[in-house]
Amino acid sequence: MPLEIERKFLLNGDLLPAAVATEPIEQGYLAATEDGVEVRLRRIASQCVLGIKRGEGGFSRVEVELPVTETQFAELWPATAGARLVKTRHSVPVYDTLAYVDVYAQELSGLRTVEVEFPSEETARAFTPPDWFGAEITGAKE
Amino acid sequence: MPLEIERKFLLNGDLLPAAVATEPIEQGYLAATEDGVEVRLRRIASQCVLGIKRGEGGFSRVEVELPVTETQFAELWPATAGARLVKTRHSVPVYDTLAYVDVYAQELSGLRTVEVEFPSEETARAFTPPDWFGAEITGAKE
Repeated sequence: MPLEIERKFLLNGDLLPAAVATEPIEQGYLAATEDGVEVRLRRIASQCVLGIKRGEGGFSRVEVELPVTETQFAELWPATAGARLVKTRHSVPVYDTLAYVDVYAQELSGLRTVEVEFPSEETARAFTPPDWFGAEITGAKE
Repeated sequence: MPLEIERKFLLNGDLLPAAVATEPIEQGYLAATEDGVEVRLRRIASQCVLGIKRGEGGFSRVEVELPVTETQFAELWPATAGARLVKTRHSVPVYDTLAYVDVYAQELSGLRTVEVEFPSEETARAFTPPDWFGAEITGAKE
């Protein structure tokens, strides 16, 4: 997924459709520059990934994800101290795609977001959020 | 090479032993944080690598290198604008190991460095630089 086109929202209330999958995510930021480069370590289920995003604002960012071993993850993880988060990701069907509902824990407890990825900026713009989506926060920092 | 233990020097004059290999290196920095994380894209010969280093000062840094495809390299390379360098790396035998002599081009033209990697901090400390090594710059930014 080189180009990531997505929109992100808060949730509107407590109810949402049943999830088809639920996975724990642990992530930490290795670097985030003023010109919009983010380097992130993530463990999702049991997979470790280093993700690099570049580009600011709007729907679209370039994203490259590289698998890392548990050992490489452990070597780099200390450098994310102070910039970590834990959340549970629920994959929820929306129209003909999946929305990812993230329920944050620890310092960010109480925060719940939902994001949807699109194949093009046109489909992103045309998307009508269902009732259970709340305020849009596309482009806001996590 | 998770733990990188190396010492780095300028060259002392123009003469050095014959190289056993010579490779062009093109690299750019995606991010460099105040607490010592560096994220670097490098093309050496025809191999593309994303390198992440953490830790400051002294001989030792943690280094993780991940192979990236030409396509991934091309997607991320624009984010290194303003933080790129081009150099030629000469591998030169020193005692029973190889030293890497880097001859910089473009903005850094005139800079020539040599670095040696060690299996332990003890061997790093015990290393006696040969005559053609100049001032030590271990720990200095590239």
